[in-house]
Amino acid sequence: MAVCIKSIRSFSQAIRKSLHLGIRENTKLKNWGLKHEKTLLQSISNKKTKFYKLAVIGSGSWASAIARIVGHNARHNDLFDETVMMYVRQRIFKGEKLTDIINSQHENPCYLPGFKLPDNIFAVSDVVEAARNSDIIIFVMPHKFVKQTCTPLIGQIKPYSIGVSLIKSFDVDDSGEIRLVSDWLRKNLNIDVSVLMGANIAHEVAAEFLCEATLGTYDEQVGNILKQLFETDYFKVTMSTDLSTIELCGALKNIVALASGCVDGLGYGNNTKAAVIRLGLTEMIKFAQWFYPKAKLETFFQSCGVADLLTTCYGGRNRRLAEAFVRTRQKLNELEAEMLEGQKLQGPETADAVHRVLKKQNLEEHFPLFVVVNKIFTGQLPPTELITCVRHHPQFRNLV
Amino acid sequence: MAVCIKSIRSFSQAIRKSLHLGIRENTKLKNWGLKHEKTLLQSISNKKTKFYKLAVIGSGSWASAIARIVGHNARHNDLFDETVMMYVRQRIFKGEKLTDIINSQHENPCYLPGFKLPDNIFAVSDVVEAARNSDIIIFVMPHKFVKQTCTPLIGQIKPYSIGVSLIKSFDVDDSGEIRLVSDWLRKNLNIDVSVLMGANIAHEVAAEFLCEATLGTYDEQVGNILKQLFETDYFKVTMSTDLSTIELCGALKNIVALASGCVDGLGYGNNTKAAVIRLGLTEMIKFAQWFYPKAKLETFFQSCGVADLLTTCYGGRNRRLAEAFVRTRQKLNELEAEMLEGQKLQGPETADAVHRVLKKQNLEEHFPLFVVVNKIFTGQLPPTELITCVRHHPQFRNLV
Repeated sequence: MAVCIKSIRSFSQAIRKSLHLGIRENTKLKNWGLKHEKTLLQSISNKKTKFYKLAVIGSGSWASAIARIVGHNARHNDLFDETVMMYVRQRIFKGEKLTDIINSQHENPCYLPGFKLPDNIFAVSDVVEAARNSDIIIFVMPHKFVKQTCTPLIGQIKPYSIGVSLIKSFDVDDSGEIRLVSDWLRKNLNIDVSVLMGANIAHEVAAEFLCEATLGTYDEQVGNILKQLFETDYFKVTMSTDLSTIELCGALKNIVALASGCVDGLGYGNNTKAAVIRLGLTEMIKFAQWFYPKAKLETFFQSCGVADLLTTCYGGRNRRLAEAFVRTRQKLNELEAEMLEGQKLQGPETADAVHRVLKKQNLEEHFPLFVVVNKIFTGQLPPTELITCVRHHPQFRNLV
Repeated sequence: MAVCIKSIRSFSQAIRKSLHLGIRENTKLKNWGLKHEKTLLQSISNKKTKFYKLAVIGSGSWASAIARIVGHNARHNDLFDETVMMYVRQRIFKGEKLTDIINSQHENPCYLPGFKLPDNIFAVSDVVEAARNSDIIIFVMPHKFVKQTCTPLIGQIKPYSIGVSLIKSFDVDDSGEIRLVSDWLRKNLNIDVSVLMGANIAHEVAAEFLCEATLGTYDEQVGNILKQLFETDYFKVTMSTDLSTIELCGALKNIVALASGCVDGLGYGNNTKAAVIRLGLTEMIKFAQWFYPKAKLETFFQSCGVADLLTTCYGGRNRRLAEAFVRTRQKLNELEAEMLEGQKLQGPETADAVHRVLKKQNLEEHFPLFVVVNKIFTGQLPPTELITCVRHHPQFRNLV
């Protein structure tokens, strides 16, 4: 059987390589090539041959929770190679290397204590080692580590591998243009990148409470392979081709969560909070449709949209810290140090990035909630200005 | 001034009457007539003449909270006559008639204790007396009292008056057809009826915490008058012409709130709850679009849609009782007696009505969440079936 798998893999790899080398310059041809390549892969997978080698790039709580799922599916679905490589940013925990702890105790005591990882997860501290031979690479780390972590991968991974980003944030360049994480990965690593976003608080996923996520991919067959990789009895996956909207939702909801925590901190009730979340959602939609005109309204009704927004605005740490920020008037970085054990909030950074885009493109007045959140959390305005902003929101100027 | 107002009013009434009498049979002509009538009214209102007489039909907590708003605006906006009639279902409270308490103490101690009503609210226990001379009649009471309360009004109110329904529920007739409350009022009272729905927990509105609502009306000028009637500095109003969707949202969200409380009762976390609310929302949309094909997706992004859903699913009493129902396994009516002081939940009744429509029209399989909620709360299935339902929801069968 091993010989058989090996020969099929080499055969496929040879075809992939020839397809890849000849047609990289031409996108249409490239897509044609990918399509045919995937048809081949699909026909191989139909033969129940273990095929796709897997890597998880990241070792935080969400990376560990998703590694539990992927590890389980790799073991139980013949489409995937059983060993899952996991890139772990090395650190010493109670005198021992984190990679050694994960490999011997099958647990990540730093970021997901109390939950066993499957023993087919193999942790390494060299990102190239983790990803070099992988066919599917799952990127899941805080946004600020992406470039530093992934730059060593440039030119070092299989060119036809499939990337999946679980990273909920984006950059803004000096000219005020949005740079999605998936775009950075796509461009720099020269691979296809899908996205997976949703209402997925890591500890609850690890506890195997039923939940769902949205998988965004341009390619039907890649989608069907990735659905098999991620879906379990407790982690359900819907699919969409609206990638940029899915990715934007994951980032923008953190701004709304800050607003939501602000409402809690000011002592307002359910009605006010619902109004703020609702207006935040409408600004998310407007933002997505402005910068990505093909953005679909339906995508906001997926887990990545309204559901993730709810989870974050009622249960997330951006909401919690924002509430504390308003109540205590302490500085955000002090609160982060006290409440997040050195981790950073994503919300303020995203609010700042969004504000920079809006300023550069002269759109501030169209997104008053996004703007006021940034001004509040950078100390330029008092938190009560959120309420003033809602009171005068352009939405209330409409007539029938 | 009084003479002037009186003469303008008689003049307008004469015109209204002539328009009304001649053209009631023909809808197009009727609409034309109403349009012209309203232009006249508008031109009168521009002269700052007090014009519209007001009535609130209902005396519960929401009726009292909205009476505070309407009473305030009637006093401060020359468009409206200052006295607001309020129909109060008579009861004796601490030895005194409720109407007398409201008229002397300017408070409704039964349903909204601790909040003063403006002293231009005049409570009466005769519904015809309350509404007979009114130009704008606000209907706000539990759904089950509508027919009994409003039947006496048939033929007794001004035929050209404007109705506004704040009632969040609907009926289903024996043939499985949906009967919206606004339709019943429109048909039986022979008047135009707008709707006002949103994330409006009564006590928070009474406490003047900032919130918003969606006003649905077919007519621009009626909309603009009603916006002036309802909007305050803390109660903001957006407008829409998608009336049936607005009204359906107000009813259907209570089914999702039961599901949401069920998740809490079963001890699941934020992710599961967000998934259930999200799937509930998609069934709300599907239901609205199925039965009212002109239903707009945008309406679900208004306060009546996603915001009211949030408030109800995180803070409402349907959620609270559903959680208790699952935890204690007590009967719903016992819990209602214990926890709601004799008031009834709207959710189970709506779930039952919706299930009847779906059964009659052979659509059960398309709305599994709605159906399972009804089966759980009528004791036909255990609460854990909600999780099974979500796990197998048709949404997760989709491919890219």
